[in-house]
Amino acid sequence: MDVTRYLLTLAAILAAAKLFGEAARRIGQPAVLGELVAGVVLGTSVTGLVDAGNEILHLFAEIGLVILLFEIGLETDLSALVRVGGLSTVVATVGVALPFALGYLVCRLLGLDNIVAVVGGATLTATSVGITARVLSDLGRLHEPESQIILGAAVLDDIIGLVILSVVAGLSQGEQVSVLGVARTTAIAFGFLAATLVLGRRLVPPVIRMAQQVDLPGTPTMFALMMAFSLAWLAGAAGSALIIGAFAAGLLLRSTPKAEEVQRGIAHLGYFFVPIFFVSVGAAVDVSVFDPLDPENRETFLVGGSLIVAAVVGKFLAGYAAFWFKGDKRIIGVGMIPRGEVGLIFAQTGLASGVFDHRLFSAATLVVMVTTFMAPPLLKLLLPSVRTGPAPQRADGVEELIHEP
Amino acid sequence: MDVTRYLLTLAAILAAAKLFGEAARRIGQPAVLGELVAGVVLGTSVTGLVDAGNEILHLFAEIGLVILLFEIGLETDLSALVRVGGLSTVVATVGVALPFALGYLVCRLLGLDNIVAVVGGATLTATSVGITARVLSDLGRLHEPESQIILGAAVLDDIIGLVILSVVAGLSQGEQVSVLGVARTTAIAFGFLAATLVLGRRLVPPVIRMAQQVDLPGTPTMFALMMAFSLAWLAGAAGSALIIGAFAAGLLLRSTPKAEEVQRGIAHLGYFFVPIFFVSVGAAVDVSVFDPLDPENRETFLVGGSLIVAAVVGKFLAGYAAFWFKGDKRIIGVGMIPRGEVGLIFAQTGLASGVFDHRLFSAATLVVMVTTFMAPPLLKLLLPSVRTGPAPQRADGVEELIHEP
Repeated sequence: MDVTRYLLTLAAILAAAKLFGEAARRIGQPAVLGELVAGVVLGTSVTGLVDAGNEILHLFAEIGLVILLFEIGLETDLSALVRVGGLSTVVATVGVALPFALGYLVCRLLGLDNIVAVVGGATLTATSVGITARVLSDLGRLHEPESQIILGAAVLDDIIGLVILSVVAGLSQGEQVSVLGVARTTAIAFGFLAATLVLGRRLVPPVIRMAQQVDLPGTPTMFALMMAFSLAWLAGAAGSALIIGAFAAGLLLRSTPKAEEVQRGIAHLGYFFVPIFFVSVGAAVDVSVFDPLDPENRETFLVGGSLIVAAVVGKFLAGYAAFWFKGDKRIIGVGMIPRGEVGLIFAQTGLASGVFDHRLFSAATLVVMVTTFMAPPLLKLLLPSVRTGPAPQRADGVEELIHEP
Repeated sequence: MDVTRYLLTLAAILAAAKLFGEAARRIGQPAVLGELVAGVVLGTSVTGLVDAGNEILHLFAEIGLVILLFEIGLETDLSALVRVGGLSTVVATVGVALPFALGYLVCRLLGLDNIVAVVGGATLTATSVGITARVLSDLGRLHEPESQIILGAAVLDDIIGLVILSVVAGLSQGEQVSVLGVARTTAIAFGFLAATLVLGRRLVPPVIRMAQQVDLPGTPTMFALMMAFSLAWLAGAAGSALIIGAFAAGLLLRSTPKAEEVQRGIAHLGYFFVPIFFVSVGAAVDVSVFDPLDPENRETFLVGGSLIVAAVVGKFLAGYAAFWFKGDKRIIGVGMIPRGEVGLIFAQTGLASGVFDHRLFSAATLVVMVTTFMAPPLLKLLLPSVRTGPAPQRADGVEELIHEP
């Protein structure tokens, strides 16, 4: 273990993230787009300064994702989320079913095997809540009703995605998939979130009173971080996704007295860890699959291009599934488009099990990249940035937009 | 790589550090003492929750040490350090020579080989600047003239310690040690610090003006962190110690316009990373060497006890080497006592090369533990805590205390 080398790598990641983030801002794009580009540039296929497969950087990136979802949870009003719950559920369900069906169809039409088509379709299902949430946060629009619906749907998507992933992993290893097993995975994922929120509401206040006895600087922030890490661990140990635990921790701490101090403190940890996550996502991209001169890439382009259409159309139409919502359905549809790390995990599972060959894996990578990179500028176009002060709380607006006669 | 397990370990480290830190504070001791105890409790030899040999935790701990020294640098006035430079140099030199001579003598009197006695003496030489600086900072006394002398001497000690370490590593591998080699290591270590400070004074202002063009939240803090990491890397790459680079980065940024904002931002990263360092130091302690019922431990106690006397007396008397200083020389002597991680590195080098057997290694561990744990309460006794507001700047006092007619 060469500590000095990691210090340099971390410094390079931070520098590139700031440089490209600022460049993105100057051409009117969200900073996160610049961080993704920074990752591509630092990644194995360009300069090779950052190895996306390095497990230590992976840990830093995962901590970044946990902190990001914790921050998003701290900014999310649970009652607003519940208020848009019906809309989110419809968007999430359609947003999983439609891309899966379209992706499966595209693969079959291109002559691929049934099992390959299933994994291909599954790759298109899960929205990357991290990317969308960060863009909405960069634009100061996290409190818009559209954003609340997207966040809710993206979290549900992640839970559904987990269930699909366990099914796909089983299928691609030639296992029999039982209805009972699928039901169990589903129950655990949803049960964790519900149990955490119900128990947390009772347990958090006394624990916070206890933590307030500690008279050392930084205690509220570190206590909050401990809770985010512990719930992330618990979610993982219960067979669910880390980020669901981190998000739940944020939701629970939002209504506590020290929430604002915690938000300010965690922000500084986020400035360090969160860009590492986005740079890692970018670094996983292999730019050589884009070389149009390489004849091997033609099939990748064909499959990848068709899957991109399925991925974008599927999620975009899911926005219109919330047909009784009077706000801008386009924003919801676009907000659901990015696949990010979740799509890459599906693609890697497919590759590791031998269901995907190298070209199909590259095609899936292409889908993830294009959907990830297209969402920030499109969202920016639909949602002009609010840069002065915190976003307006359109709580009354939400009621108005949802509860139509 | 099990990300969830690391999240739990990090949460446990933070929780134990806060719990024991608060307990230490309640019995009137510095919080760092509690963090060291937390490490012993979490460590391999007690509960086994934290493995001090784990290289990922080692990286987090080293980042903590880098951030700590960067924070200390940000709080250190270079001109005050230069003003006490003569005093620091004398304290550092005597503080290396005397413990080495006493340690060598003790080992020889106990019938140990010449080479073993050399490594044994060398283990006593380097002060752990991290522990002393943290205690002084916890007590709000970082700006006292005594503290400035200790800090300067401890940094010089680290540089001298590096030189000795390279010599000892060569000796214990049976190599010939050339005067030229020793001179080269010395020149690199001191040269790095001098070159960084001289070049940095010219290079930092334009770089900062460039960084101010970036209009993204958290930029000054992340820019400062990048600089600390880069200089730490550069110091390591130049064959010197990481912490010297981090300390130099702090000294250079102190006089820049955003220094206060950086200090506040870095503090939050410090709340997370710094306790990991102290818990790691504690976790490296093997409590089984303290079992008085185990007859094997008798020789360990004898050698260890004699070395502790040599270590404490040697460093304490070094405080009196600054004979023309009119302040409290006892504070300087006590401040130089803790050996911490540097002593452990020496002991590990001795063990790895076969010069130390397991019992001698345990004896050296005992020295590190006792000297590390005795300094915080003694310093607290000599320097009553200043808890309200920043410490008084006794700049005039320094002049008065040093420049005696």
